Amino acid sequence: MSILAVGSIAFDSIASPSGRVDNVLGGSATYFSLAASYFTEVRMVGIVGEDFTPQHEGVLKKRGIDTRGIEHAPGKTFRWGGQYFDNLNEAKTDFTDLNVFERFVPHIPREYADTQFLFLGNIHPDLQRQVRQEMDGVRLTGGDTMNYWIQRTKRELTETLKVINVLLINDTEAKMLAGESSLPRATRKVLAMGPQALVVKHGEYGATIFFREGAFGIGSHPFRAPALPIEEVKDPTGAGDSFAGGFMGYIASQEQLNREVLKRALFYGSVMGSFAVEQFGTERLQSLTRPEIEARFQIFRELTHLE
Amino acid sequence: MSILAVGSIAFDSIASPSGRVDNVLGGSATYFSLAASYFTEVRMVGIVGEDFTPQHEGVLKKRGIDTRGIEHAPGKTFRWGGQYFDNLNEAKTDFTDLNVFERFVPHIPREYADTQFLFLGNIHPDLQRQVRQEMDGVRLTGGDTMNYWIQRTKRELTETLKVINVLLINDTEAKMLAGESSLPRATRKVLAMGPQALVVKHGEYGATIFFREGAFGIGSHPFRAPALPIEEVKDPTGAGDSFAGGFMGYIASQEQLNREVLKRALFYGSVMGSFAVEQFGTERLQSLTRPEIEARFQIFRELTHLE
Repeated sequence: MSILAVGSIAFDSIASPSGRVDNVLGGSATYFSLAASYFTEVRMVGIVGEDFTPQHEGVLKKRGIDTRGIEHAPGKTFRWGGQYFDNLNEAKTDFTDLNVFERFVPHIPREYADTQFLFLGNIHPDLQRQVRQEMDGVRLTGGDTMNYWIQRTKRELTETLKVINVLLINDTEAKMLAGESSLPRATRKVLAMGPQALVVKHGEYGATIFFREGAFGIGSHPFRAPALPIEEVKDPTGAGDSFAGGFMGYIASQEQLNREVLKRALFYGSVMGSFAVEQFGTERLQSLTRPEIEARFQIFRELTHLE
Repeated sequence: MSILAVGSIAFDSIASPSGRVDNVLGGSATYFSLAASYFTEVRMVGIVGEDFTPQHEGVLKKRGIDTRGIEHAPGKTFRWGGQYFDNLNEAKTDFTDLNVFERFVPHIPREYADTQFLFLGNIHPDLQRQVRQEMDGVRLTGGDTMNYWIQRTKRELTETLKVINVLLINDTEAKMLAGESSLPRATRKVLAMGPQALVVKHGEYGATIFFREGAFGIGSHPFRAPALPIEEVKDPTGAGDSFAGGFMGYIASQEQLNREVLKRALFYGSVMGSFAVEQFGTERLQSLTRPEIEARFQIFRELTHLE
């Protein structure tokens, strides 16, 4: 089945203890789409400037991604520059030039109307909700957000959370959104705001999915997928979006929509996140094979599997 | 089989967002022994002052713990006071009165000579090594250490690591010990210092065990146990020692000493750590039952178990 990703497309300049790259293709929709493309048919909606060349688009097309929803606008593409130091969990932003992304209003091509799954990347909650309302036939909507929107547009975000089925955020964002310092309490509050499931990403420690009582199955037991503790991290940029791409992409590839599928999806999310950080930018996500993905899935499974 | 715990016995005064307690029984050997007592026969070596009453000793004896190795010295028992704020991972120390613990030199009672398993709590590495040499018939030695010894007694600690089979420390300690900011690199360096296995405790995110190539079985794949994301933490004091008690206690209860046993032990460590934090001090660890422990083991297993 098909999935639509709405979010940013960017050129990133990244430095980490492992090296540096300049103006490489990035952005939440890009990482998400590349990761999801190994599981299902992916469609993109985003905005780019005149500096976005057919070569850049070729990276997406090569992975079979439908780029008809990418709007080409006069001006420059969104640019971000950041550095990672020893603590790879946190980036120091050098610059954020929104450029054409500042005026981004998602336009859904008519050809995308039959899309069954939707992922709302980290954009203004009003825009997220507008897309969701336009795509009212989707089976499942995943969404992301960040501190910026939680602090500045809480009311709008609260409305959007009512139409998101699975929210994917990190520990800090979950606590901030709920106004709770305890994660267990925070997750209960966030689930009460609307989503049937909440995926909390723990960075190098993996991710946990929390369910609303009875959603996607019986009970409300959470489930955790680990992250890989044996690989070197070269560039953490896009790890969360790649996680979301693996998670949502796997879900969209399945006929059923139940807890077992969501659990496996959580593992595939961790798998794609672990690949993303092995090389700078999207490099590793461009050249994977399904057998490589399955092999790592097995490693992750063994990492926590008790006989 | 029996296990000997060597470490601190203390009276703790603890404040957290959930309340406060004063002068409750604590210390690394206490938490460790109580947790291990649900799995195997436990013997203790430590030092206390005149304020340590038969009632305090009764808490240990009630759990069947052999207290003949507890030395009663003139003066006061080690006292620690600390507070936890919203971030329950970090304590702010109010005071540390070492008292009789400052002069602690472990004396192993003759009756303990046949002990098969040994846990060296967080004391001066020279004292740890001295105990280990005295107990040269043990099957497996586990050990703990902390930033204080890593920074001040690196040379002595390096010698001690050669006679410890399983080292249990947290992420920060592992990175500091190895002088490496990357955890994967740090674990490889620490394992090269001597231990056959390294357990890295991740606080609320669980723990990972790393093996030296070929130690306790084939290959060197790590294994991770989760921590419980659904319980409220009242008092994190002693969580790491309770983890170690569950881990080592389970190992000591088994005939075999292989990877499957160590993996299950890692889960039992997480289980005992999760109980410890539910109440202040050692309260929860005093009144558990084996069925409660097994039920939580199953919850932890389901938390990461893919069909």
